[in-house]
Amino acid sequence: MLIGVDVGGTNIRVLSVDDDDHARVTMRSSAPTPDDADELAARIVALVGDHLAADTVEAPVGVAVAGLAHRSGTVHYSPNIRCLVHYPLASTVAAGLGHRVVMGNDANAACWAEYRIGAGRGVDDLLLVTLGTGIGTGMIIGGRLVEGAHGFAGESGHMVIDQHARAHHTGQHGPWEMTASGTALMSRARSAVESGQLQLHSDLSPTAFAAALANGDAAALAIVDEVAAQVALGCANLIMVLDPARIVIGGGLSSLGETLRAAIDRHIASVVLGAQYRPAVEVVLATLGDDAGAVGAALWARDAQEKFSK
Amino acid sequence: MLIGVDVGGTNIRVLSVDDDDHARVTMRSSAPTPDDADELAARIVALVGDHLAADTVEAPVGVAVAGLAHRSGTVHYSPNIRCLVHYPLASTVAAGLGHRVVMGNDANAACWAEYRIGAGRGVDDLLLVTLGTGIGTGMIIGGRLVEGAHGFAGESGHMVIDQHARAHHTGQHGPWEMTASGTALMSRARSAVESGQLQLHSDLSPTAFAAALANGDAAALAIVDEVAAQVALGCANLIMVLDPARIVIGGGLSSLGETLRAAIDRHIASVVLGAQYRPAVEVVLATLGDDAGAVGAALWARDAQEKFSK
Repeated sequence: MLIGVDVGGTNIRVLSVDDDDHARVTMRSSAPTPDDADELAARIVALVGDHLAADTVEAPVGVAVAGLAHRSGTVHYSPNIRCLVHYPLASTVAAGLGHRVVMGNDANAACWAEYRIGAGRGVDDLLLVTLGTGIGTGMIIGGRLVEGAHGFAGESGHMVIDQHARAHHTGQHGPWEMTASGTALMSRARSAVESGQLQLHSDLSPTAFAAALANGDAAALAIVDEVAAQVALGCANLIMVLDPARIVIGGGLSSLGETLRAAIDRHIASVVLGAQYRPAVEVVLATLGDDAGAVGAALWARDAQEKFSK
Repeated sequence: MLIGVDVGGTNIRVLSVDDDDHARVTMRSSAPTPDDADELAARIVALVGDHLAADTVEAPVGVAVAGLAHRSGTVHYSPNIRCLVHYPLASTVAAGLGHRVVMGNDANAACWAEYRIGAGRGVDDLLLVTLGTGIGTGMIIGGRLVEGAHGFAGESGHMVIDQHARAHHTGQHGPWEMTASGTALMSRARSAVESGQLQLHSDLSPTAFAAALANGDAAALAIVDEVAAQVALGCANLIMVLDPARIVIGGGLSSLGETLRAAIDRHIASVVLGAQYRPAVEVVLATLGDDAGAVGAALWARDAQEKFSK
């Protein structure tokens, strides 16, 4: 049995999964994310304690955090979990549990999960792009997870693609996530509803928008196409930097499915330099859904242990 | 003895270097780059043949090419060597020489050289940024050269940072190299000369500009600062994606030295998201100069052989 934890801005999710190529979830629990760091660590200990009591777990517990999760086990900073500033989360949780802990970034963990048991299987140069409130990315290069010198790699949503744009809430001008995230799509949808271009059967929500899209609504299709073009621009940047064989699209926005995937695919081909001279990059949808972060943390804790014997 | 070849848009450079940590150059030759692919391969064979005749060489000959150099040894496309389209350069040269050849991209080769024997020694997460006619980049992650799925990684100069800008000669709108290369600096300098803001003692040239800068000319300093800000913007993007420990600045523009380096360093700190929460990335000048590509090709051919036993 393996245990993985995903610490997000709203909830903490804990999964026990089988230690095999399917990583079937055998137990799950969750609780709101406290806004105090010590309470947050204590809550993880309480939740994981129940999982440890339920079965034999030999591998370290994997913890994925949305933020700058340092290799050392310290969270330096998390935009969505404000209490975690230079906080030694891994060692605090490990001490509370009396069990080893391996910590990492949530998008990196999700990428590892897709690589090992999801939509990324079979290629060793892989990019995961999760489109949600912002954009998270994870990268596999030559079969290895890219963590960077400090463990902060994969913050590609903050890559600037439009330097003369207005300031984003991060303070940057024109970062990728400003125009290519789920938030960006809902913002465009709101404008279209207000101007009467987009008519929905209920109040604006992701579900209502998805329903309009499923009905072939032209305004909804146009919005998806515009956002897909922005997603593609950042993907093209990463293709030129990293030359992946496959890009996996995940996050809440990926529930829009094939319409979104095909549009991103088409736009990438039009903006990658020298596209006619290079093999096309596969664009596929993620298969692990909201569990990817916790599952990936569990697998990564096991695999990192195998690799580094720590 | 090792042999490295650097195939650029203008010249082919061939070096013999000692097979040790200094890679001292013991023989060098060069010739103009032909505009026919078979002639180009034949010229490399002729040049390298003299080097092979002069000493015992056991490692493969390393060949660095400015373009999309596929792992297989085929150059798919080179913007500055137009005759090389889907051309099997490595096998053609190897057949002509009767000696093994390992081929790669020139910026990747230069990065490997800086990593092994230059300004990149001592860190395993490294980024080389060469500022010349365009921008070339090479990346070391976890001690390994990033080649990507096809060998095309490191084309970061084509990363779009200003999507609403005018079209660059590549057809892209606002790629990094459009505002951050040596070409961009000379273009700003020309405008400043024409408007009377920048006064030089001779006609505009890189040397005349460097002289004005060395004299502390305010207009020249302002131009360097503007270009450094653009260099920094792309570096910041790559820091957020890859989390390197050090960035090595090379290429023709790096001859502007400490003034340029310090300006890039300062601007990076102001645009990297969460800079106050993360260790600063070292910014240093390259030490290997124009030989980096050929030296790196020689070292890479040796090291790739050691690693993969092919």
